Amino acid sequence: MELIKEGDYILIRFKEKRYLKKVESDKNFSYKGGILHYKELIGKPFGITIGDLQIFKPTLEEIILYGIKRETQIIYPKDTFYIAKKLNLSEGKVILEFGTGSGAATMVFSSCVGSSGKVYTFEREERIFKVAKRNLTKFGFTSNVEMFNEPFNPEKVKGIKFDAAFVDVREPYPYVEDVWKVLKPSAPVGFLLPTANQVQELLKVLRPLFGDIEIMEILTRYYKANPERFRPEDTMIGHTAYLLFAKKLSK
Amino acid sequence: MELIKEGDYILIRFKEKRYLKKVESDKNFSYKGGILHYKELIGKPFGITIGDLQIFKPTLEEIILYGIKRETQIIYPKDTFYIAKKLNLSEGKVILEFGTGSGAATMVFSSCVGSSGKVYTFEREERIFKVAKRNLTKFGFTSNVEMFNEPFNPEKVKGIKFDAAFVDVREPYPYVEDVWKVLKPSAPVGFLLPTANQVQELLKVLRPLFGDIEIMEILTRYYKANPERFRPEDTMIGHTAYLLFAKKLSK
Amino acid sequence: MELIKEGDYILIRFKEKRYLKKVESDKNFSYKGGILHYKELIGKPFGITIGDLQIFKPTLEEIILYGIKRETQIIYPKDTFYIAKKLNLSEGKVILEFGTGSGAATMVFSSCVGSSGKVYTFEREERIFKVAKRNLTKFGFTSNVEMFNEPFNPEKVKGIKFDAAFVDVREPYPYVEDVWKVLKPSAPVGFLLPTANQVQELLKVLRPLFGDIEIMEILTRYYKANPERFRPEDTMIGHTAYLLFAKKLSK
Amino acid sequence: MELIKEGDYILIRFKEKRYLKKVESDKNFSYKGGILHYKELIGKPFGITIGDLQIFKPTLEEIILYGIKRETQIIYPKDTFYIAKKLNLSEGKVILEFGTGSGAATMVFSSCVGSSGKVYTFEREERIFKVAKRNLTKFGFTSNVEMFNEPFNPEKVKGIKFDAAFVDVREPYPYVEDVWKVLKPSAPVGFLLPTANQVQELLKVLRPLFGDIEIMEILTRYYKANPERFRPEDTMIGHTAYLLFAKKLSK
Repeated sequence: MELIKEGDYILIRFKEKRYLKKVESDKNFSYKGGILHYKELIGKPFGITIGDLQIFKPTLEEIILYGIKRETQIIYPKDTFYIAKKLNLSEGKVILEFGTGSGAATMVFSSCVGSSGKVYTFEREERIFKVAKRNLTKFGFTSNVEMFNEPFNPEKVKGIKFDAAFVDVREPYPYVEDVWKVLKPSAPVGFLLPTANQVQELLKVLRPLFGDIEIMEILTRYYKANPERFRPEDTMIGHTAYLLFAKKLSK
Repeated sequence: MELIKEGDYILIRFKEKRYLKKVESDKNFSYKGGILHYKELIGKPFGITIGDLQIFKPTLEEIILYGIKRETQIIYPKDTFYIAKKLNLSEGKVILEFGTGSGAATMVFSSCVGSSGKVYTFEREERIFKVAKRNLTKFGFTSNVEMFNEPFNPEKVKGIKFDAAFVDVREPYPYVEDVWKVLKPSAPVGFLLPTANQVQELLKVLRPLFGDIEIMEILTRYYKANPERFRPEDTMIGHTAYLLFAKKLSK
Repeated sequence: MELIKEGDYILIRFKEKRYLKKVESDKNFSYKGGILHYKELIGKPFGITIGDLQIFKPTLEEIILYGIKRETQIIYPKDTFYIAKKLNLSEGKVILEFGTGSGAATMVFSSCVGSSGKVYTFEREERIFKVAKRNLTKFGFTSNVEMFNEPFNPEKVKGIKFDAAFVDVREPYPYVEDVWKVLKPSAPVGFLLPTANQVQELLKVLRPLFGDIEIMEILTRYYKANPERFRPEDTMIGHTAYLLFAKKLSK
Repeated sequence: MELIKEGDYILIRFKEKRYLKKVESDKNFSYKGGILHYKELIGKPFGITIGDLQIFKPTLEEIILYGIKRETQIIYPKDTFYIAKKLNLSEGKVILEFGTGSGAATMVFSSCVGSSGKVYTFEREERIFKVAKRNLTKFGFTSNVEMFNEPFNPEKVKGIKFDAAFVDVREPYPYVEDVWKVLKPSAPVGFLLPTANQVQELLKVLRPLFGDIEIMEILTRYYKANPERFRPEDTMIGHTAYLLFAKKLSK
């Protein structure tokens, strides 16, 4: 059985809050009600309860939500989980992504394609690129990810035919033809677009090159875990982005 | 470049409809407006347009939505894609599932854990078990899936410590302790529950054994792909199921 | 106590369906399971149960949903009920509406302003105008409604300062200034707009003349009335229209 | 034309915020960017713009959202507007309400039934009753509202046959029969219920006395009023309450 050891990441659940922390034996976690010295955890199993705290092994979703540094608006797991499978990602697939942003989607794609697959990701802004690089390194997503600090540049991936592409940049329109060129026939592409205007604009340029277009939003509605007073949470995330999916047409 | 060949599955998009078909050179697809002889497709690339038809290589989502035989209410990809990643599935993970149902979730889990992972799935009803078996066989999901035609039986998976579990049966309450026993510490479990009553009932028995409980619904809102008249579809799926996730507490 | 009499409108609820019918003693209602002769109802109280049928006095919502003839896309009560009160309608208010459409919103406005208020409504298409006129006459909404079979024409309401206005036409943009002129200072205006493009277009011309702009959609989620299996309905209306409200700015 | 005068209530819109204030010539409104002396407004029309501020005449919705004192969870206008018309309220109708709460629904009902109608409302808690009384008095909703500081007591409304009833108390179950007795045949009743458990419980006792049961939630999705970046607001209200409507069956 795997036990908590020095350097592990842990998810602390305290009442309704969650915290992602690193186990460092000379450090501690203070919360309203006490202090947890991380060294107490070493050698204990994940899943233990210590007073009001529950200590878990973090999932990919929790690494993204509570662990990574964000320089841009994060892409929520509700969206990336759906995007990854909608792009038909599985073991061994090769995917193109731009822009990298904080690397949240990159992590999900990396997790989906596995050690025999590959993620190529481009980010033009140096500051954001560095944050993404740190996030991916910190949580061990580097072995199947190749990062480029520039706008999408087909020259850098010459000869590769991609199984899928994911585009999350403010102005995706000029890249549509280049994406088409590097994809395998029938391969899916996904776009993340915060505004209706972007969807309208993209649709105009997409049509001749991509078919089977689908546009949707994913809404997640959380409930209070109280069996005597079961009801949805009072507030919810109202909008993150429109998702647009299409497949490469052959000419 | 991969070309369409005898025996391939194809996704035909005709206007707003999609059809999943098998390429058999002596058969054809009739639609309002014409007939497609499948033999015309052989040797052509996926992604081609033939008159009003677009021919694509089907994705996992399309296999589930348009290709599998359903004996039970299907679990929608919007839910299974989210469930699979929420359960932290990735290359090499070993997951327990019951009941198998039509095998839709099984396919998604199989795709997520890859060739080095494994899905153990139980289905008590023989009729449903057979349909699931046929579906999984037909679309090639058998190499990392082990199927049992009985209710969840811990004896059959003795010695295995699971990375995750997914439960989709009408009365999951009696199985909670057995699931707890076969999971690794801190491992996530997911439940799919169509009614509020099931959530309320499950919450009552879950608490001592599982922590970090989350309950939610996933809603997908589709839009018409018309840039001049952009708006949501007139109708939408209003409810499939409540999803409940939790993590094993260590005693 | 009011009893059912010849010529009354009734709402018949049969299983999950509702029917709005007129009591005519020589006619009957056939349904899967039997025949109801309307003359049996005369002299009975509303609210009675006859076999599988329940007989109620129709509400305004039911007149709109099940009683009126529709030549255009109907405006749903979920929207009109909200619009009417958002426009601050109450006893004695005077409201401008165009286009009339099937008269569904007109009925709600008429009901809100009462006998001392007034609804002025314009409909350019003769065919639709006639249907609306018949609907309003049939259900008794004529005493406080004045109808015009032409596009909105300020000459026809000369001298009137309106408490509110409601606009439901495909191209509302050219009317914005005329609406501004006939409203009282600070008076609310509402627009019903099926597409995002219309909202975007309208916003561009609205700004100099109207303030306190709000845009929203109303979504209604229905539940199955089963206490043992409580859950939302499987399908729901995904979209009717965007609603835009604003208030007249004084110059 | 109506001009702003001493003692009037005004709605101030400043950027994305709204404030409901009373015009008192010796007072002022300070905001980030300046001070508005209310005396400047006197004699000016509603709807004027003063620097970054827009000054409107408040609507009923704004009185409820920004003007009334709240001792309890407020009922949102999105819900009360719908409830009022779903209960078929119009000029001259007589409605029973309990509990009064902050009086928000009472105001809407009062506005709907007009000067020839009547609202009878019961509130058991003295503290809440006093707040509601002050709210209704302050904004002029007293002429057609009769208030009782006690639990619903049929003795107090003896001889009245109500056109509709609205119930918003934590435990409505014991009152179902009494409500049935005071309603006219076929008259609608509405219940506001924050939790699924309350709906399930109520359904069990409602069936023999009330028919045509409907249960729903109203969700309002707001959009940013930016034509160049049109999209929903980032957060939304996820849940206020389940609404249950039914109609009195005749025995």
